[in-house]
Amino acid sequence: MSELRINRNRFLQLMDEQARIGGTEAGGVSRPALSEQDVAVRDWFKQTIAAHNGDHRLEYHMDGAGNQSIVLPADDPDARTLLIGSHLDSVPNGGRFDGPLGVLAAFEALLTIQEAGFKLPFHLEVINLTDEEGHIQGLLGSSAVVGRLDEASIQTPRGGYDQLVTGLGRLGLTPESMLTARRDPQSLIGYIETHIEQGTRLERSNTAIGVVTSIVGIRTAWLTFAGEAAHAGTMPMAQRRDALWGAAHFVQQARERVMQDFAPGVVNFGKIALAPGAFNIVPSEVRLAMEYRHGELAAFDAMERALLELAQSSADTFDLGLAIEQTHAVPPAPMADAFITAVERAADALGLSHTRLMSFAGHDAQSFAGVTNSVMFFVPSVDGISHNPKEYTAPDDCVNAANVMLHTVLQVADAIV
Amino acid sequence: MSELRINRNRFLQLMDEQARIGGTEAGGVSRPALSEQDVAVRDWFKQTIAAHNGDHRLEYHMDGAGNQSIVLPADDPDARTLLIGSHLDSVPNGGRFDGPLGVLAAFEALLTIQEAGFKLPFHLEVINLTDEEGHIQGLLGSSAVVGRLDEASIQTPRGGYDQLVTGLGRLGLTPESMLTARRDPQSLIGYIETHIEQGTRLERSNTAIGVVTSIVGIRTAWLTFAGEAAHAGTMPMAQRRDALWGAAHFVQQARERVMQDFAPGVVNFGKIALAPGAFNIVPSEVRLAMEYRHGELAAFDAMERALLELAQSSADTFDLGLAIEQTHAVPPAPMADAFITAVERAADALGLSHTRLMSFAGHDAQSFAGVTNSVMFFVPSVDGISHNPKEYTAPDDCVNAANVMLHTVLQVADAIV
Repeated sequence: MSELRINRNRFLQLMDEQARIGGTEAGGVSRPALSEQDVAVRDWFKQTIAAHNGDHRLEYHMDGAGNQSIVLPADDPDARTLLIGSHLDSVPNGGRFDGPLGVLAAFEALLTIQEAGFKLPFHLEVINLTDEEGHIQGLLGSSAVVGRLDEASIQTPRGGYDQLVTGLGRLGLTPESMLTARRDPQSLIGYIETHIEQGTRLERSNTAIGVVTSIVGIRTAWLTFAGEAAHAGTMPMAQRRDALWGAAHFVQQARERVMQDFAPGVVNFGKIALAPGAFNIVPSEVRLAMEYRHGELAAFDAMERALLELAQSSADTFDLGLAIEQTHAVPPAPMADAFITAVERAADALGLSHTRLMSFAGHDAQSFAGVTNSVMFFVPSVDGISHNPKEYTAPDDCVNAANVMLHTVLQVADAIV
Repeated sequence: MSELRINRNRFLQLMDEQARIGGTEAGGVSRPALSEQDVAVRDWFKQTIAAHNGDHRLEYHMDGAGNQSIVLPADDPDARTLLIGSHLDSVPNGGRFDGPLGVLAAFEALLTIQEAGFKLPFHLEVINLTDEEGHIQGLLGSSAVVGRLDEASIQTPRGGYDQLVTGLGRLGLTPESMLTARRDPQSLIGYIETHIEQGTRLERSNTAIGVVTSIVGIRTAWLTFAGEAAHAGTMPMAQRRDALWGAAHFVQQARERVMQDFAPGVVNFGKIALAPGAFNIVPSEVRLAMEYRHGELAAFDAMERALLELAQSSADTFDLGLAIEQTHAVPPAPMADAFITAVERAADALGLSHTRLMSFAGHDAQSFAGVTNSVMFFVPSVDGISHNPKEYTAPDDCVNAANVMLHTVLQVADAIV
């Protein structure tokens, strides 16, 4: 089957069709999860089956969390399922590739396998997962599938409970029905997702495929440097305990240390608040918002230790107090080795260059990691632009995504048979 | 007259008496300019004349800006006037020394000269200047005397026009009457003020008297570092244009440079605003409030050039834009050499150690600089604490202030005769 290729024209036409639904004048799409526009693209997706279901083997269903599936069943009804897909929702005023590429590459791979008459040792299920982007609650659909939702968590989605009720109501569902979407992990072989990179590593290195080894963990903290307010004229500089001096020193040190010792880990200081906040008063307090990400737990922990030590030494250098309030943590999600290898072999079979990298943004593949085999791979984003109508991935790269998806499925099938 | 000394007990009693008016439980005073408490201390000051005016030579008057004066007239009615004084108003919940020490040291010096029967070649005028602290408009009374007020400027005091009208009304005055307070500079010999240091330079060096060579100029600017917002996960650190990196780098560099090359000049960054302001977005813009002070114009200008060059090089280092908006400037006010020498000779005559220094806070003496001979001198503040009920200056240091004021007046008289 190594000569098998997806149908380029059909696939690119599907990509064009979806982009018209909730399409914006600027060339992007605006389909926040469970909005009318999201419902419209869901209807379109359901209807595309009919057009491509010549032998009536494909099955459609939607689960209690609104996840839509198109299934190419195995002959053995007791076979396990390989999930492939992504999401059709978008951020408000987003681009046309972030999500849909993964759903439609998976669908195109499924159609190609169906047409080739290839028998798979598993049910192949293309899935459109609900609200990956978090209009109401990020990774909502995939969290439901892996059983991460419970009664309590669905009461307080970040987008609001009323929004959740209204949105699910458009699909005839309820917050309670979401709990029924859970799958038995034993029924699953794994999950494979392709996505645009939303970065420039592939573009800059002229590489076709980025195989994700891990979706990075994210930790956040508030660092409070505490000095002493003083008259900005009469207090000699050598005697000041200026909280901004410590914070500024730390920002510099943290940047250098992470770049030098913990790449590709990243750190960001996205908010800062200073008190008392007057031109003529030496700052007594600076609150600094720190977010840091890494894909490997051991390196992540070491990076965290280094950052907190640097913060303390910066505080000490300027005779300041330091309080650290860690506020949020998402663990790194390592991808499954066997599936990483499957993607690489697929790329090799297609003669496509590939590299391993971490995903620094969240994706549904992280919900599946640790529950079943999960992997994702990227294709280049022009200039790394994403969550923006200017988001663009060249047709050849979209086609590569679909072909690698196709051959990764075949690799997994080979390994199982 | 070198043996002449002020009356320690009388003077310290006057200091105690004034502190009861608008006195706070914490031991400070709260007498915002033109408030009921300020009116009360003004009444007390006027009444103290009667108790010390045995031979009826002293004259009292108040000008159109509310400045109160007690005059020991010279025999020649056409003689010029030497002003000595400070202010009796305070910041809300302030200390009992900031201002009153200067007024009462001057008054005690005048009483001592009067009692000694010493004939001065000038009218000696103790003056309590209105609103030095700026409850309504900083240096209001001294600005009126030197003719720096005009019709336009009195319409928009920083504390509000209504507050000004109400406050002056308590004294039977109006905003318009303030313009009548202007004195012909030719009628003045100069202005001498003593004040607590509000810093720790004298205390740390165990020096009795600080002779002010200049009241520092103050300049302020907003510096805007402009980079590019980016995803704090997916954008590799090496490709970020993080505005905070430039701002933090600059804060560090500015601190080091000013301390190394421009001491005793100072720089402060008292406000900072960052956009867009989210944990997971690389900052695209940082606005940094810079205030810098120096007492010598040439060094001030050189310091400003160095700071702006450092800001530009920090911006360049991180591939950022930089916009500089200079918002406010008060020029340095050099004190008169002849009067500086007079203070030093007075301290020498009293066997008191002295040093030259700059004043890093504003004082009425800066209004008089450039218009007439102006000088001020400091005595130690314990721990440098000021604008605080804990503000404290030891009785011996208060007495030193009054004695140095006395002998400085005598030095000026000697120089003129």
